[in-house]
Amino acid sequence: MATIGIVDTTFARFDMGSVALDEINKNASARTVRITVPGIKDLPVASKKLLEEQGCDIVIALGMPGSAEKDKMCANQASQGLIQAQLMTNKHIIEVFVHEDEAANEKELAQLMENRAREHAVNVVKLLYKPKKLIKEAGTGQRQGFEDVGPLGM
Amino acid sequence: MATIGIVDTTFARFDMGSVALDEINKNASARTVRITVPGIKDLPVASKKLLEEQGCDIVIALGMPGSAEKDKMCANQASQGLIQAQLMTNKHIIEVFVHEDEAANEKELAQLMENRAREHAVNVVKLLYKPKKLIKEAGTGQRQGFEDVGPLGM
Amino acid sequence: MATIGIVDTTFARFDMGSVALDEINKNASARTVRITVPGIKDLPVASKKLLEEQGCDIVIALGMPGSAEKDKMCANQASQGLIQAQLMTNKHIIEVFVHEDEAANEKELAQLMENRAREHAVNVVKLLYKPKKLIKEAGTGQRQGFEDVGPLGM
Amino acid sequence: MATIGIVDTTFARFDMGSVALDEINKNASARTVRITVPGIKDLPVASKKLLEEQGCDIVIALGMPGSAEKDKMCANQASQGLIQAQLMTNKHIIEVFVHEDEAANEKELAQLMENRAREHAVNVVKLLYKPKKLIKEAGTGQRQGFEDVGPLGM
Amino acid sequence: MATIGIVDTTFARFDMGSVALDEINKNASARTVRITVPGIKDLPVASKKLLEEQGCDIVIALGMPGSAEKDKMCANQASQGLIQAQLMTNKHIIEVFVHEDEAANEKELAQLMENRAREHAVNVVKLLYKPKKLIKEAGTGQRQGFEDVGPLGM
Repeated sequence: MATIGIVDTTFARFDMGSVALDEINKNASARTVRITVPGIKDLPVASKKLLEEQGCDIVIALGMPGSAEKDKMCANQASQGLIQAQLMTNKHIIEVFVHEDEAANEKELAQLMENRAREHAVNVVKLLYKPKKLIKEAGTGQRQGFEDVGPLGM
Repeated sequence: MATIGIVDTTFARFDMGSVALDEINKNASARTVRITVPGIKDLPVASKKLLEEQGCDIVIALGMPGSAEKDKMCANQASQGLIQAQLMTNKHIIEVFVHEDEAANEKELAQLMENRAREHAVNVVKLLYKPKKLIKEAGTGQRQGFEDVGPLGM
Repeated sequence: MATIGIVDTTFARFDMGSVALDEINKNASARTVRITVPGIKDLPVASKKLLEEQGCDIVIALGMPGSAEKDKMCANQASQGLIQAQLMTNKHIIEVFVHEDEAANEKELAQLMENRAREHAVNVVKLLYKPKKLIKEAGTGQRQGFEDVGPLGM
Repeated sequence: MATIGIVDTTFARFDMGSVALDEINKNASARTVRITVPGIKDLPVASKKLLEEQGCDIVIALGMPGSAEKDKMCANQASQGLIQAQLMTNKHIIEVFVHEDEAANEKELAQLMENRAREHAVNVVKLLYKPKKLIKEAGTGQRQGFEDVGPLGM
Repeated sequence: MATIGIVDTTFARFDMGSVALDEINKNASARTVRITVPGIKDLPVASKKLLEEQGCDIVIALGMPGSAEKDKMCANQASQGLIQAQLMTNKHIIEVFVHEDEAANEKELAQLMENRAREHAVNVVKLLYKPKKLIKEAGTGQRQGFEDVGPLGM
C-alpha cells in the first residue's frame, strides 16, 4: 500500500492539510502521514523527512505565502527548496501555494485554498496510481482552484 | 538503441509532448518514454526520474509558463531545477518553454509552441547522434520557434 | 536528552541568541549549544556544523538583515542556504529574521526582535517535543513577533 | 599534458568557440576538446561532462545572452549552474558571456565577443599554468573585452 | 598549526588580498595560502579548492562587484556559490565584498576596501581561535569597513 505525506503550516489562515487529507481519502485507499510546520520555509525539509524517514511515496506540501514583497521572496525560497528535495529523493512533492493576494476577500480566499488543495490532492492520486490519465490531459490548460482555461483555440 | 524521454504538463494549453514525440520519430529511430505532470515545477524531478529510473539518455522537457509575475518566478524555479537535474545526472535535458505572452493571439501562440517543440526535438536528436553538426552551427544565431537571426553582420 | 543549537550574529543590533536561549530553557530541559558568527550569510554553515559536528537535533538561526536593497539580497542568500543545510541534514533549522525596516523605531524593533525570537524558540520546542500540537494549529494564522491574524473569516 | 574544454552555443551570433580555441593554441600546447550546445542553459552540464567524461582540467564556456528580461533570467540560471558544476568537480569553468546589449551595433558586438573570448582564454591558460602571475595582477582592475580600468587612484 | 586561505580577484581595483594577508599575520601565527582568480564568480570553486586541496581550515574571499545591474547579479551568484561551498565542506568562508558604488570617490572606495578586508580578517581569526569572543559581541551591531552602529537604543 502506498503512503502519501501531507504537510502544511500554522502560518496559513485555512486548514489546507485537513482538506487535502479528506480529498485523498475520498480518491484512494493509501496510508497517510500528516505533519504541520510553522511556515512555508519549513516545508522542504519536512517533506524530505516524510519521504525518507516516514516511508512516503509522494508528498503534498501546502502553504499560504503572505502578500508583502518579503513574503514573495520566502515563497520563492520555499519553492526552490521543494524542487531540490524532489531531486535529492527522486520522488514528487506537489506544491500547493495560495498567495494571500490571489482573492478579493477572506471568503473567496478560503474557497480558493480549499479548491486548490482538493484539486492538487487529486493530482497526487493521479501521479501515484493513474499516470496515463495525466498524459491524456497534456496541454489541456488544467488549472487548480480556478476554472480550467482549456486548450488554445486554433 | 538510445532512449529519449519526453515530459510535458497538463497546465500548458497545447499538447507539446505529442508534437515533440512526432518530430523525434521523424528524425531518429530511438526508443521513447513519455510522461505528463501537472505543472512546470514538476518537470525537474520527472525528468530526473526518466533519466535515472527509465533509462533515458536525454530528456526534452516542455512547458508553457503563464504571463503573471508569479508565473515568471515559477519558470525561473523550474529552469534552475532542470539545470540541477542535469548536473546530478551528467545528461542533457533540453528545456522547451514558451511563455504565454510571447505571441499576440491564441493561434500564433499554438503555432509558436508547435514550432519550438519541433525545433528543439531536432536539437535533442543532434545532441544524441550528430554532435559535430552542432559545432558547425556554433555562433550562427539559431532560434527555436522564430526565424533564425543569423550571425552578426561584420 | 535532545540538543538544541542557537546561532546568531554580531551584525544584529539586539542579542537575539540570549533571548532564544532563555526561552528554550523556560520551556524544555534540553542541552543547548550557542555560537555567534559575524553576519547572516555565515548562519547556514554554522547551523550545519551545529547539526553535524555538535550533535544538535535542531537549530534556531537568528539574524537582523539591514534595510538596503543589498541587504535584502543577502537575506535571500542566507535563507536559501539555511534551506539547503536542512535538506543536507534532514533536520530543521528555524530561521528567525527580523528586517531592520519592520519597525518604526529602535525601541519597537528591539521588542519585535525579542518577541519573534521567543515565539520561534517555542516553535523549536514544539517541533522537537510536541509535533501533534502543531497539527492542531494548522491553518490558524500564527504569526511570530506580531499578534496572530487567526483563521480566515468565512 | 593538460586538457582544456571549450563549449559554446548555436544561439550566439559570433563563433566564440573558434576564437577561444585559436587563442588557447597560441598561448599553450594543451590538448583541447570542443563541443557546441543549443543555448546558454545547456552550458553547465556540457561543461561538467567535459570535466568528468572527457578528462578536461578546465573549461571555457562561452555564450551570448539576449537582451530581453527573459534572457537575463536565463543568463542568471546558466551562471548559477556553471558555479554549481565547478563546486561539484573542484575544477574551474571560466564563463565568457557577452550580453547582446553591451555594444552599440553588430560590428562592435562581434568585436567585443572576440576580444572577451580571447582575453578569457588567456585567463584559462594563466589559471592552468601560471597561477602566480594572477596574484601579481590582484586588484589591478583587469577587464576582458574592454580596456582595463586599472587600480583605484589614491 | 591552522591554515588560512586568501583568495581575491584581478577585477578588483584594490589589492584586498595583500591587506587581508597582512592583517592575518598581525593577529595570528597561522600558515597562509594565497591565490588570485579573474572575477568574483571564480571565488566559490577557488575557495573550495583551498579548503579541500590545500588543507585550509577557513578561507577569506575578497572581491569588488561593479555597480551595473549585471554586476549585482554576478555578486548574487558568487555569494550563493560561496554559501554552497561552505555547506559542502562544513568550513567557513568569510566573504568580503565591497560594491563599487558604496563610496563617493576612488580614494574613499580604496579606504573602505582596506578597512573591510582588515576587519573581516580579524573575524576570520576570531572564528578560528576565539569563538567565545564572538558570542560576547552578539547583537552589538558590528559593521566592517564603516563605524559600528552598536546595539539598539532601548
